[in-house]
Amino acid sequence: MTHQTLRSVIKAADRAISAEDFDSLMDFYAEDATLVVKPGMTVKGKARIKEAFEAIAEHFKHRLTVRQGEMEVMEGADTALVIMKSFLDTVDADGWDLTLVRRASYVFKRSEGGRWLCTVDNSYGTDLLDA
Amino acid sequence: MTHQTLRSVIKAADRAISAEDFDSLMDFYAEDATLVVKPGMTVKGKARIKEAFEAIAEHFKHRLTVRQGEMEVMEGADTALVIMKSFLDTVDADGWDLTLVRRASYVFKRSEGGRWLCTVDNSYGTDLLDA
Repeated sequence: MTHQTLRSVIKAADRAISAEDFDSLMDFYAEDATLVVKPGMTVKGKARIKEAFEAIAEHFKHRLTVRQGEMEVMEGADTALVIMKSFLDTVDADGWDLTLVRRASYVFKRSEGGRWLCTVDNSYGTDLLDA
Repeated sequence: MTHQTLRSVIKAADRAISAEDFDSLMDFYAEDATLVVKPGMTVKGKARIKEAFEAIAEHFKHRLTVRQGEMEVMEGADTALVIMKSFLDTVDADGWDLTLVRRASYVFKRSEGGRWLCTVDNSYGTDLLDA
């Protein structure tokens, strides 16, 4: 159940990223969530997360589509660890199609109203340890 | 600050595992935490987590020492994602020394009293996606 719910939530969030609808995207985050922008750079809080996504869209020349791959959910004590393959379809510096594959780790927390909100968004997963 | 606190907490937990002091070990977990015992097998709740650690100790023939490697902490909304290298010193079936290396992902939640409790213990990290 939680697995299906979180898959839907993440799918909707990735759709918002692909559409550059960052206002809607912020609905998926807890107020003081943390986003790993890239190895060595994290930002905290919705305002800064939104700015980071605007910069990411710019970085990918507004040609970014995010797709979800295999996913595992581990739920405990009103939190959930989600690990999933994530595919980023974009273009390289010369305009050629390019797909980046990541093995992401996300933390979600069940809010008082029962909704799952993302508290830590680390699309690099444990690969940060080798970065 | 949180980084240092969680490093100490994990170090103490690993010491309890190495000493097979599973009563003390349970103090580090939230009541309904989840443990990934091995790919495809998770257990939930302190009673079953304790049983799983007893089985793990048996599996490693009571020759298991856990050491911590590189660690990253991402904190958001009173939760934390910890990713770390973990070294398991043990012996193989023939009694030869053996070290297993894992890239683990742990979720912690700050309890009302301010203590950090483990809610999801996944020592396999994103490697579960390839299991």
